[in-house]
Amino acid sequence: MNILQFINQNLNYDLTSTEDLPFSVKEKSLSVGKILTDYGQLETKIYFLKKGLIQISINHNDQERILDFVFEGNFFASLTSMLIKKPSDVQIIAITDIQIEVFDYSELEKAYTHSLLANQLGRFALEKIYIQNTNREKDLLLKTAEQRYLDLLQKRPDIISLLPIHKIAKYLGIHPESLSRIRKSIIS
Amino acid sequence: MNILQFINQNLNYDLTSTEDLPFSVKEKSLSVGKILTDYGQLETKIYFLKKGLIQISINHNDQERILDFVFEGNFFASLTSMLIKKPSDVQIIAITDIQIEVFDYSELEKAYTHSLLANQLGRFALEKIYIQNTNREKDLLLKTAEQRYLDLLQKRPDIISLLPIHKIAKYLGIHPESLSRIRKSIIS
Repeated sequence: MNILQFINQNLNYDLTSTEDLPFSVKEKSLSVGKILTDYGQLETKIYFLKKGLIQISINHNDQERILDFVFEGNFFASLTSMLIKKPSDVQIIAITDIQIEVFDYSELEKAYTHSLLANQLGRFALEKIYIQNTNREKDLLLKTAEQRYLDLLQKRPDIISLLPIHKIAKYLGIHPESLSRIRKSIIS
Repeated sequence: MNILQFINQNLNYDLTSTEDLPFSVKEKSLSVGKILTDYGQLETKIYFLKKGLIQISINHNDQERILDFVFEGNFFASLTSMLIKKPSDVQIIAITDIQIEVFDYSELEKAYTHSLLANQLGRFALEKIYIQNTNREKDLLLKTAEQRYLDLLQKRPDIISLLPIHKIAKYLGIHPESLSRIRKSIIS
Protein backbone atom coordinates (compact mmCIF):
# COMPACT_ATOMS: atom_id res chain seq x y z
CA MET A 1 0.00 0.00 0.00
CA ASN A 2 1.09 3.59 -0.64
CA ILE A 3 -0.19 6.97 0.55
CA LEU A 4 -2.57 7.40 -2.39
CA GLN A 5 -4.16 4.01 -1.77
CA PHE A 6 -4.35 4.76 1.98
CA ILE A 7 -6.27 7.97 1.22
CA ASN A 8 -8.55 6.46 -1.42
CA GLN A 9 -9.39 3.50 0.78
CA ASN A 10 -9.95 5.29 4.08
CA LEU A 11 -11.18 8.74 3.08
CA ASN A 12 -13.32 8.01 0.00
CA TYR A 13 -11.16 9.76 -2.55
CA ASP A 14 -10.30 8.65 -6.05
CA LEU A 15 -6.83 10.14 -6.50
CA THR A 16 -4.59 8.85 -9.28
CA SER A 17 -1.34 10.76 -8.74
CA THR A 18 0.68 12.09 -5.80
CA GLU A 19 0.51 15.41 -7.71
CA ASP A 20 -3.07 15.61 -6.40
CA LEU A 21 -1.76 15.79 -2.82
CA PRO A 22 -1.29 19.14 -1.04
CA PHE A 23 2.35 18.21 -0.23
CA SER A 24 5.16 16.65 -2.25
CA VAL A 25 5.97 12.99 -1.67
CA LYS A 26 9.33 11.32 -2.32
CA GLU A 27 9.94 7.58 -2.57
CA LYS A 28 12.97 6.00 -0.93
CA SER A 29 14.50 2.56 -0.58
CA LEU A 30 16.72 2.19 2.50
CA SER A 31 18.82 -0.60 3.94
CA VAL A 32 18.36 -2.45 7.21
CA GLY A 33 19.94 -0.55 10.10
CA LYS A 34 19.19 2.91 8.67
CA ILE A 35 18.23 5.35 11.43
CA LEU A 36 15.43 7.58 10.15
CA THR A 37 15.11 9.66 13.33
CA ASP A 38 17.65 9.50 16.13
CA TYR A 39 17.47 10.35 19.84
CA GLY A 40 17.76 14.12 20.25
CA GLN A 41 16.93 14.91 16.64
CA LEU A 42 14.08 17.27 15.70
CA GLU A 43 11.47 15.43 13.66
CA THR A 44 10.60 17.28 10.45
CA LYS A 45 9.40 14.40 8.24
CA ILE A 46 6.44 12.09 8.04
CA TYR A 47 6.96 8.58 6.70
CA PHE A 48 4.69 5.98 5.18
CA LEU A 49 5.90 2.38 5.24
CA LYS A 50 5.32 0.59 1.93
CA LYS A 51 7.56 -2.42 2.55
CA GLY A 52 9.52 -3.72 5.52
CA LEU A 53 9.52 -3.27 9.27
CA ILE A 54 10.29 -0.30 11.52
CA GLN A 55 11.25 -0.25 15.20
CA ILE A 56 10.58 2.65 17.57
CA SER A 57 12.57 2.60 20.79
CA ILE A 58 13.17 4.77 23.85
CA ASN A 59 16.08 4.96 26.30
CA HIS A 60 15.29 4.68 29.98
CA ASN A 61 18.13 4.66 32.50
CA ASP A 62 20.52 3.61 29.70
CA GLN A 63 18.29 0.64 28.97
CA GLU A 64 16.73 0.55 25.54
CA ARG A 65 13.07 -0.35 25.45
CA ILE A 66 11.26 -1.12 22.19
CA LEU A 67 8.07 0.92 22.24
CA ASP A 68 6.57 -0.31 19.05
CA PHE A 69 6.96 -1.90 15.66
CA VAL A 70 5.46 -0.24 12.59
CA PHE A 71 3.99 -2.48 9.93
CA GLU A 72 3.43 -1.95 6.22
CA GLY A 73 0.62 0.42 5.30
CA ASN A 74 1.08 2.80 8.24
CA PHE A 75 2.35 6.31 8.80
CA PHE A 76 5.09 6.90 11.33
CA ALA A 77 7.26 9.71 12.73
CA SER A 78 8.56 10.90 16.07
CA LEU A 79 5.17 12.52 16.55
CA THR A 80 5.65 14.42 19.80
CA SER A 81 8.93 15.88 18.55
CA MET A 82 7.22 16.97 15.34
CA LEU A 83 4.16 18.44 17.04
CA ILE A 84 5.87 20.33 19.87
CA LYS A 85 9.09 20.98 17.91
CA LYS A 86 11.40 19.55 20.57
CA PRO A 87 14.21 16.95 20.22
CA SER A 88 12.97 13.40 19.81
CA ASP A 89 13.14 11.01 22.77
CA VAL A 90 12.55 8.04 20.51
CA GLN A 91 14.70 6.47 17.83
CA ILE A 92 13.18 5.21 14.57
CA ILE A 93 15.19 2.55 12.78
CA ALA A 94 14.70 0.20 9.82
CA ILE A 95 15.04 -3.40 11.01
CA THR A 96 14.65 -4.79 7.50
CA ASP A 97 15.34 -3.21 4.12
CA ILE A 98 12.47 -0.79 3.63
CA GLN A 99 10.56 1.13 0.98
CA ILE A 100 9.00 4.33 2.22
CA GLU A 101 7.26 7.46 1.06
CA VAL A 102 8.27 10.64 2.87
CA PHE A 103 7.13 14.25 3.01
CA ASP A 104 7.88 17.40 5.02
CA TYR A 105 5.72 18.22 8.04
CA SER A 106 6.20 21.93 7.23
CA GLU A 107 4.35 21.40 3.92
CA LEU A 108 1.56 19.51 5.67
CA GLU A 109 1.29 22.26 8.30
CA LYS A 110 0.85 24.88 5.56
CA ALA A 111 -1.78 22.70 3.87
CA TYR A 112 -3.66 22.43 7.20
CA THR A 113 -4.70 26.10 6.88
CA HIS A 114 -6.79 25.51 3.75
CA SER A 115 -6.87 21.87 2.56
CA LEU A 116 -9.78 19.61 3.50
CA LEU A 117 -7.81 16.55 2.37
CA ALA A 118 -4.72 17.45 4.44
CA ASN A 119 -6.84 17.80 7.59
CA GLN A 120 -8.83 14.64 6.90
CA LEU A 121 -5.60 12.73 6.42
CA GLY A 122 -3.93 14.20 9.53
CA ARG A 123 -7.02 13.54 11.63
CA PHE A 124 -7.57 9.99 10.38
CA ALA A 125 -3.91 8.94 10.63
CA LEU A 126 -3.74 10.32 14.17
CA GLU A 127 -6.97 8.52 15.17
CA LYS A 128 -5.40 5.26 13.96
CA ILE A 129 -2.18 5.88 15.89
CA TYR A 130 -4.17 6.90 19.00
CA ILE A 131 -6.17 3.66 18.95
CA GLN A 132 -3.01 1.56 18.47
CA ASN A 133 -1.17 3.33 21.30
CA THR A 134 -4.13 3.00 23.66
CA ASN A 135 -4.40 -0.72 22.92
CA ARG A 136 -0.66 -1.10 23.53
CA GLU A 137 -0.89 0.72 26.87
CA LYS A 138 -3.87 -1.36 27.90
CA ASP A 139 -2.05 -4.57 26.98
CA LEU A 140 0.95 -3.45 29.05
CA LEU A 141 -1.33 -2.75 31.99
CA LEU A 142 -3.60 -5.79 31.79
CA LYS A 143 -1.67 -8.62 30.14
CA THR A 144 1.30 -10.72 31.16
CA ALA A 145 4.41 -10.92 28.99
CA GLU A 146 3.38 -14.47 28.03
CA GLN A 147 -0.07 -13.31 26.85
CA ARG A 148 1.50 -10.47 24.89
CA TYR A 149 3.97 -12.88 23.30
CA LEU A 150 1.10 -15.19 22.28
CA ASP A 151 -0.77 -12.18 20.81
CA LEU A 152 2.28 -11.24 18.76
CA LEU A 153 2.73 -14.84 17.65
CA GLN A 154 -0.87 -14.95 16.48
CA LYS A 155 -1.11 -11.50 14.88
CA ARG A 156 2.42 -11.20 13.53
CA PRO A 157 4.20 -14.54 13.12
CA ASP A 158 6.39 -12.74 10.53
CA ILE A 159 7.85 -10.55 13.29
CA ILE A 160 8.70 -13.50 15.50
CA SER A 161 10.58 -15.16 12.66
CA LEU A 162 12.30 -11.91 11.57
CA LEU A 163 13.59 -10.72 14.93
CA PRO A 164 16.30 -12.02 17.23
CA ILE A 165 15.07 -13.10 20.67
CA HIS A 166 16.67 -10.14 22.48
CA LYS A 167 14.64 -7.68 20.40
CA ILE A 168 11.36 -9.44 21.08
CA ALA A 169 12.28 -9.49 24.79
CA LYS A 170 12.98 -5.73 24.68
CA TYR A 171 9.57 -5.22 23.16
CA LEU A 172 7.85 -7.36 25.80
CA GLY A 173 9.84 -5.60 28.53
CA ILE A 174 11.35 -8.82 29.91
CA HIS A 175 14.75 -10.53 30.02
CA PRO A 176 15.70 -12.76 27.07
CA GLU A 177 15.96 -15.68 29.56
CA SER A 178 12.34 -15.15 30.63
CA LEU A 179 11.28 -15.16 26.97
CA SER A 180 13.16 -18.42 26.40
CA ARG A 181 11.27 -19.94 29.35
CA ILE A 182 7.95 -18.70 27.91
CA ARG A 183 8.79 -20.16 24.50
CA LYS A 184 9.72 -23.50 26.02
CA SER A 185 6.53 -23.66 28.07
CA ILE A 186 4.45 -22.92 24.95
CA ILE A 187 6.14 -25.64 22.91
CA SER A 188 5.84 -28.22 25.67
CA MET B 1 -13.16 29.21 27.65
CA ASN B 2 -15.79 27.69 25.37
CA ILE B 3 -15.63 25.78 22.06
CA LEU B 4 -15.93 28.94 19.94
CA GLN B 5 -13.05 30.61 21.77
CA PHE B 6 -11.00 27.40 21.52
CA ILE B 7 -11.49 27.38 17.74
CA ASN B 8 -10.87 31.10 17.25
CA GLN B 9 -7.74 31.01 19.38
CA ASN B 10 -6.13 27.84 18.02
CA LEU B 11 -7.34 27.64 14.43
CA ASN B 12 -7.40 31.30 13.36
CA TYR B 13 -11.13 31.66 12.93
CA ASP B 14 -13.36 34.56 13.88
CA LEU B 15 -16.62 32.81 14.72
CA THR B 16 -19.26 34.64 16.74
CA SER B 17 -21.97 31.99 17.22
CA THR B 18 -22.17 28.22 17.72
CA GLU B 19 -24.58 28.37 14.75
CA ASP B 20 -21.42 28.74 12.61
CA LEU B 21 -20.28 25.27 13.70
CA PRO B 22 -20.95 22.19 11.53
CA PHE B 23 -22.55 20.41 14.55
CA SER B 24 -25.03 21.52 17.20
CA VAL B 25 -23.71 22.32 20.65
CA LYS B 26 -25.68 22.14 23.91
CA GLU B 27 -24.67 23.74 27.21
CA LYS B 28 -25.11 21.85 30.47
CA SER B 29 -24.52 22.42 34.17
CA LEU B 30 -24.05 19.21 36.15
CA SER B 31 -23.44 18.40 39.79
CA VAL B 32 -20.40 16.81 41.41
CA GLY B 33 -20.57 13.01 41.17
CA LYS B 34 -22.36 12.94 37.81
CA ILE B 35 -21.09 10.10 35.63
CA LEU B 36 -20.87 11.30 32.04
CA THR B 37 -19.63 8.01 30.60
CA ASP B 38 -19.63 4.76 32.57
CA TYR B 39 -17.66 1.54 32.26
CA GLY B 40 -19.20 -0.56 29.47
CA GLN B 41 -21.12 2.32 27.91
CA LEU B 42 -20.72 3.23 24.23
CA GLU B 43 -19.35 6.75 23.88
CA THR B 44 -21.46 8.87 21.51
CA LYS B 45 -20.74 12.39 22.81
CA ILE B 46 -17.86 14.81 22.86
CA TYR B 47 -17.54 17.18 25.80
CA PHE B 48 -15.80 20.50 26.31
CA LEU B 49 -15.07 21.51 29.92
CA LYS B 50 -15.90 25.16 30.59
CA LYS B 51 -15.79 25.04 34.40
CA GLY B 52 -14.82 22.44 36.95
CA LEU B 53 -12.78 19.25 37.06
CA ILE B 54 -13.22 15.84 35.43
CA GLN B 55 -11.71 12.49 36.41
CA ILE B 56 -11.05 9.63 33.98
CA SER B 57 -10.48 6.25 35.61
CA ILE B 58 -9.98 2.62 34.62
CA ASN B 59 -10.59 -0.62 36.51
CA HIS B 60 -7.74 -3.09 36.70
CA ASN B 61 -8.16 -6.28 38.75
CA ASP B 62 -11.03 -4.60 40.63
CA GLN B 63 -8.69 -1.77 41.57
CA GLU B 64 -9.63 1.63 40.30
CA ARG B 65 -6.80 3.64 38.82
CA ILE B 66 -7.18 7.34 37.96
CA LEU B 67 -5.82 7.74 34.45
CA ASP B 68 -6.20 11.45 34.17
CA PHE B 69 -7.80 14.67 35.23
CA VAL B 70 -9.31 17.00 32.64
CA PHE B 71 -8.94 20.72 33.23
CA GLU B 72 -10.99 23.66 32.01
CA GLY B 73 -10.61 24.55 28.34
CA ASN B 74 -10.17 20.98 27.09
CA PHE B 75 -12.18 18.47 25.10
CA PHE B 76 -12.79 15.04 26.58
CA ALA B 77 -14.62 11.78 25.82
CA SER B 78 -14.04 8.06 26.05
CA LEU B 79 -12.12 8.40 22.81
CA THR B 80 -11.30 4.80 21.99
CA SER B 81 -14.89 3.75 22.63
CA MET B 82 -16.11 6.55 20.36
CA LEU B 83 -13.62 5.85 17.56
CA ILE B 84 -13.89 2.06 17.42
CA LYS B 85 -17.54 1.96 18.58
CA LYS B 86 -16.93 -0.49 21.42
CA PRO B 87 -17.96 -0.27 25.11
CA SER B 88 -15.87 2.15 27.15
CA ASP B 89 -13.24 0.76 29.52
CA VAL B 90 -12.91 4.10 31.24
CA GLN B 91 -15.32 6.02 33.45
CA ILE B 92 -15.70 9.78 33.14
CA ILE B 93 -17.03 11.54 36.23
CA ALA B 94 -17.47 15.10 37.43
CA ILE B 95 -15.49 15.60 40.65
CA THR B 96 -16.72 19.16 41.09
CA ASP B 97 -19.86 20.87 39.83
CA ILE B 98 -19.21 21.40 36.15
CA GLN B 99 -20.27 23.48 33.15
CA ILE B 100 -19.82 21.75 29.84
CA GLU B 101 -20.63 22.03 26.17
CA VAL B 102 -21.59 18.79 24.47
CA PHE B 103 -22.23 17.56 20.92
CA ASP B 104 -22.89 14.26 19.12
CA TYR B 105 -19.95 12.43 17.57
CA SER B 106 -22.31 11.25 14.79
CA GLU B 107 -22.80 14.88 13.71
CA LEU B 108 -19.05 15.50 13.77
CA GLU B 109 -18.47 12.32 11.73
CA LYS B 110 -20.89 13.54 9.06
CA ALA B 111 -19.18 16.93 9.02
CA TYR B 112 -15.80 15.21 8.54
CA THR B 113 -16.82 14.30 4.96
CA HIS B 114 -17.01 17.92 3.80
CA SER B 115 -16.13 20.50 6.50
CA LEU B 116 -12.61 21.96 6.67
CA LEU B 117 -13.36 23.37 10.14
CA ALA B 118 -14.62 20.03 11.52
CA ASN B 119 -11.45 18.26 10.37
CA GLN B 120 -9.16 21.04 11.60
CA LEU B 121 -10.86 20.89 14.99
CA GLY B 122 -10.77 17.08 15.20
CA ARG B 123 -7.13 16.99 14.16
CA PHE B 124 -6.00 19.78 16.48
CA ALA B 125 -7.92 18.49 19.53
CA LEU B 126 -6.50 15.00 18.97
CA GLU B 127 -2.95 16.37 18.59
CA LYS B 128 -3.37 18.10 21.96
CA ILE B 129 -4.67 14.94 23.64
CA TYR B 130 -1.89 12.87 22.03
CA ILE B 131 0.81 15.18 23.39
CA GLN B 132 -0.75 15.15 26.88
CA ASN B 133 -1.07 11.34 26.93
CA THR B 134 2.50 10.87 25.72
CA ASN B 135 3.81 13.19 28.41
CA ARG B 136 1.80 11.31 31.03
CA GLU B 137 3.18 7.95 29.87
CA LYS B 138 6.71 9.32 29.86
CA ASP B 139 6.26 10.68 33.39
CA LEU B 140 4.96 7.30 34.53
CA LEU B 141 7.99 5.62 32.98
CA LEU B 142 10.69 8.07 34.04
CA LYS B 143 9.57 9.81 37.23
CA THR B 144 9.04 8.67 40.79
CA ALA B 145 5.69 9.16 42.53
CA GLU B 146 7.32 11.91 44.62
CA GLN B 147 8.49 13.79 41.49
CA ARG B 148 5.05 13.42 39.93
CA TYR B 149 3.42 14.72 43.13
CA LEU B 150 5.75 17.75 43.11
CA ASP B 151 4.89 18.38 39.44
CA LEU B 152 1.18 18.31 40.26
CA LEU B 153 1.73 20.58 43.26
CA GLN B 154 3.54 23.08 41.05
CA LYS B 155 1.31 22.94 37.97
CA ARG B 156 -2.05 22.39 39.66
CA PRO B 157 -2.10 23.43 43.30
CA ASP B 158 -5.89 23.78 42.88
CA ILE B 159 -6.18 19.99 42.36
CA ILE B 160 -4.21 19.19 45.47
CA SER B 161 -6.50 21.38 47.55
CA LEU B 162 -9.68 20.09 45.86
CA LEU B 163 -9.06 16.36 46.08
CA PRO B 164 -9.00 13.95 49.02
CA ILE B 165 -5.66 12.22 49.56
CA HIS B 166 -6.92 8.81 48.40
CA LYS B 167 -7.81 10.23 44.97
CA ILE B 168 -4.40 11.85 44.52
CA ALA B 169 -2.81 8.54 45.55
CA LYS B 170 -4.92 6.67 42.98
CA TYR B 171 -3.71 9.10 40.35
CA LEU B 172 -0.07 8.68 41.36
CA GLY B 173 -0.56 4.91 41.49
CA ILE B 174 0.59 4.58 45.12
CA HIS B 175 -0.93 3.81 48.51
CA PRO B 176 -2.42 6.73 50.47
CA GLU B 177 0.11 5.96 53.25
CA SER B 178 3.00 6.40 50.82
CA LEU B 179 1.55 9.72 49.74
CA SER B 180 1.29 10.83 53.37
CA ARG B 181 4.99 9.99 53.83
CA ILE B 182 5.88 11.96 50.69
CA ARG B 183 3.89 14.97 51.93
CA LYS B 184 5.55 14.82 55.33
CA SER B 185 9.04 14.61 53.82
CA ILE B 186 8.30 17.64 51.61
CA ILE B 187 7.08 19.73 54.52
CA SER B 188 10.02 18.83 56.74
